[in-house]
Amino acid sequence: MKNVVVLGSTGSVGTQALDVLDKFKDDFNVFAISAYSNIDVLEKQIKKFSPKYVVVVNKKAAHNLKKRLNSKEVVIEAGKNNLNKLVTDNNEIDIVLNSIVGAAGLEASLSTLKAGHDLALANKESLVVGGHLIKKELQNNKSKILPVDSEHSAIFHLLEDKEKKEIKNILLTASGGPFFNKNKRELKNVTVEEALDHPNWDMGNKITIDSATMMNKGLEVIEAHWLFDIDFSNIKIVVHPQSIIHSMVEFCDNTITAELGAADMRTPIQSALTYPQKRKGIAKQLNLFEITKLNFLKPDFSKFPTLNLAYEAGKIGESMPTVLNAANEVAVNNFLNKNIGFLDIAKIVEKTMNKHDIVNHPSLDEVLATDEWARAIAREECK
Amino acid sequence: MKNVVVLGSTGSVGTQALDVLDKFKDDFNVFAISAYSNIDVLEKQIKKFSPKYVVVVNKKAAHNLKKRLNSKEVVIEAGKNNLNKLVTDNNEIDIVLNSIVGAAGLEASLSTLKAGHDLALANKESLVVGGHLIKKELQNNKSKILPVDSEHSAIFHLLEDKEKKEIKNILLTASGGPFFNKNKRELKNVTVEEALDHPNWDMGNKITIDSATMMNKGLEVIEAHWLFDIDFSNIKIVVHPQSIIHSMVEFCDNTITAELGAADMRTPIQSALTYPQKRKGIAKQLNLFEITKLNFLKPDFSKFPTLNLAYEAGKIGESMPTVLNAANEVAVNNFLNKNIGFLDIAKIVEKTMNKHDIVNHPSLDEVLATDEWARAIAREECK
Repeated sequence: MKNVVVLGSTGSVGTQALDVLDKFKDDFNVFAISAYSNIDVLEKQIKKFSPKYVVVVNKKAAHNLKKRLNSKEVVIEAGKNNLNKLVTDNNEIDIVLNSIVGAAGLEASLSTLKAGHDLALANKESLVVGGHLIKKELQNNKSKILPVDSEHSAIFHLLEDKEKKEIKNILLTASGGPFFNKNKRELKNVTVEEALDHPNWDMGNKITIDSATMMNKGLEVIEAHWLFDIDFSNIKIVVHPQSIIHSMVEFCDNTITAELGAADMRTPIQSALTYPQKRKGIAKQLNLFEITKLNFLKPDFSKFPTLNLAYEAGKIGESMPTVLNAANEVAVNNFLNKNIGFLDIAKIVEKTMNKHDIVNHPSLDEVLATDEWARAIAREECK
Repeated sequence: MKNVVVLGSTGSVGTQALDVLDKFKDDFNVFAISAYSNIDVLEKQIKKFSPKYVVVVNKKAAHNLKKRLNSKEVVIEAGKNNLNKLVTDNNEIDIVLNSIVGAAGLEASLSTLKAGHDLALANKESLVVGGHLIKKELQNNKSKILPVDSEHSAIFHLLEDKEKKEIKNILLTASGGPFFNKNKRELKNVTVEEALDHPNWDMGNKITIDSATMMNKGLEVIEAHWLFDIDFSNIKIVVHPQSIIHSMVEFCDNTITAELGAADMRTPIQSALTYPQKRKGIAKQLNLFEITKLNFLKPDFSKFPTLNLAYEAGKIGESMPTVLNAANEVAVNNFLNKNIGFLDIAKIVEKTMNKHDIVNHPSLDEVLATDEWARAIAREECK
């Protein structure tokens, strides 16, 4: 019986993770869950899974939840610090699934690794903004990272036991998002509703907008760099509109391996949680015979400037990816609130990056300070 | 420096193998080559690769080659027995590539394994007719089999280090051959020339006809059963007309992995020879962006009855696959010589199988006797 913590349990990945855990009741105990403020969903999850601990980051929401439940069975804590404390103080935890949205997830990832637990990582920002800090913790501890992003889960499987020197390229597939066939002029006036209408995947709002701008793929490039220790020049994006191949690896001998599957996040979630075992799939199965077309295209860097920005930030490294990510989070939020247009997102990220003085080898505090600085600048740019 | 023997060096796989070895001169020494009778090609190969030994199975051809060369540098031996002796008597051999065509390749495979050499296996018939004998040698010796068929090479890579209990199905891809879109009535009158015109792969005559009847895929199912120790019910044929995916493995968790590559036999040949290393690919590279379509279809068992016959023979096992293979070799030969029609091939195989009294746990001698018996019956049926 593994003790699992699900951070961000009320979000898209979090709820799907609990769905997976529910199907593997005999193998997993939901030890703790956390959310930012969605106590309606949390309350249902507490009743269903009876976790020992619950952390609600928003203090007012935590207070309201305590009033509702009034139970002695579950310990409800408030605030971000208790999130890290939860992970650090409980030795009986086996694996933490981090599905917090955005850079806010970094500290929990670091605490998890420091405490020696395995980390099922859906929060790609942990690696984007703190890849160097995560890497250090991995070197000092017995913890492992099991990627939850479908692309990275695929690559993780395909690279298992392979020699690094034999890998030519990682081919990160991208659906291309809802605007793949629009031209640049049409992109100018796309609405929030159009951007939220992803053709293949059912995901949260932030990541769906990131898919539409392709920033999501840019962040995934940086994530892949840290996860697999591969140079940026050997991480290629391949647009594959059908989202059936979840990513590929090209080897020096010209063979390419690929992982295929239905577009269902529960498969990579299950993979990460049951690793190193593979268990009976609970998600829907891919029907090969229903596939009528599978094709591949080069991404259009001029139509989707976020891709260049992400590669650039990744190659510069240091504090730059933190700026990329923070400015993007602010810009996406402003787009969702209809303060700025779709094409402004990349512009705001670029402007914020241009204003940044790089901090070398940033500590956690410096990463957090950079994050705050970039948000303030981006907020100004959104006005 | 590895000492390599190429058996069947003048055939399609043999010449491509020498092409690969030529590109890896610093790593491989062509220790010996053999052919049935094509001394024109052999002579050129001897001059280029300076092997220590050459075996020509046809004694008259061997005699002629000796007269032509008159060299003290190379030892030329005649006859099949010397083929086995060559493999058995030379401890300095590291790997034998067996690309002999047909059941005639079995004894060389067994001798190779018995002598403790690794076996790069292009002769699928070794496993079809003698899978149980091969398996015993593998258990008793330190030898390994490295599959050379593109499908089995792909599966071999995809299964490496995987737990057998986690494998749901092996998905053996098939191009469908030149007649995939013809109906049964049209198949009746196809010519030898049409059957030899394979859409994707450049191969020898025998295997090209086997591709047209789909018997090749049937034999590959039996080969996969022995190579990977997988039940016939878990080996599925998937028609994939583009031959870009070389085969797939479906795992219990609903993930599917695939190996992709250009249709160039030198890739799996290179893979087998350089195993466990992957080296820079010498064959042409797959350009993903040129792919416009990739699709998958179920094979039509009623249009291609050889598939049912092969599964049936495989499941019955014992001496039955030997009958399937021998009758098919005779029938294909008769089709190539325009003695029988295309649809007669499967009919002759079926009739021969129906007349066979199964020999349980056949010894090598019994396999060879069954082979001879089946050929005689099939020859009668062709009249």
